[in-house]
Amino acid sequence: MSSPQREACKQFLRKGKTMPAKMQPEYRTHFTPAVSWEDLKKDPSGLVPCIVQDAENGDVLMMAWMDRAAFEETAENGVMCYYSRSRKERWLKGETSGHFQYVKELYADCDSDTLLAKVEQSGAACHTGARSCFFRKVLTR
Amino acid sequence: MSSPQREACKQFLRKGKTMPAKMQPEYRTHFTPAVSWEDLKKDPSGLVPCIVQDAENGDVLMMAWMDRAAFEETAENGVMCYYSRSRKERWLKGETSGHFQYVKELYADCDSDTLLAKVEQSGAACHTGARSCFFRKVLTR
Repeated sequence: MSSPQREACKQFLRKGKTMPAKMQPEYRTHFTPAVSWEDLKKDPSGLVPCIVQDAENGDVLMMAWMDRAAFEETAENGVMCYYSRSRKERWLKGETSGHFQYVKELYADCDSDTLLAKVEQSGAACHTGARSCFFRKVLTR
Repeated sequence: MSSPQREACKQFLRKGKTMPAKMQPEYRTHFTPAVSWEDLKKDPSGLVPCIVQDAENGDVLMMAWMDRAAFEETAENGVMCYYSRSRKERWLKGETSGHFQYVKELYADCDSDTLLAKVEQSGAACHTGARSCFFRKVLTR
């Protein structure tokens, strides 16, 4: 387990929460990226958007952004890690909520500027407690 | 049908292609936005990303960007319209390919900075001819 990941586990346990078994080193999944960070087209801030989809039922859960470190940590551990644009820092999804996202598959689109992750979502993806962040209907017939 | 939409139809027909029946005025679907353009958080370029999902099988097809005009045209006609960041112009999806996207539902996420459209996709969403733009696997177990 990489050292920021290990630190996250420690912080999580320090808060008196139970770390899911899947976050333990023996469960971690190493991925070998077939497309490297260099191959991706970044936005002006050096980030790439990542759509997150429930691997089981196909629901789109959220969209978040990755920098190089987040991309590499995700590949290293098989657990979704992002870059928080609002907090301007590394964001291991689930670190505070326990709602980790275990990577099943990760795709890039045809022009390499967007990622799609199919994940096993533990609990809710949304900070409001909703399973998906997309619960506000904009257009109705 | 709004005048840019009408113009798109004319251009399409001029190229000797058959305009799908669903693009005819009598088929158009007016939507009443429950969330207005003003309610959405824009990126530094004044755009909002829109994830596009196949309403039938849940596949994520593509991601594109909307400006105010694209958002309003989409609501007006029930056919997905975007802003092309590379061409820096209005992009009625399907205008050249015939692969229009008919809106079934449109959602905003919890922090109003991302849209999710569930569409009836005519033909392929990807310019390569693939049904979905996400066909390049990045991470494999």
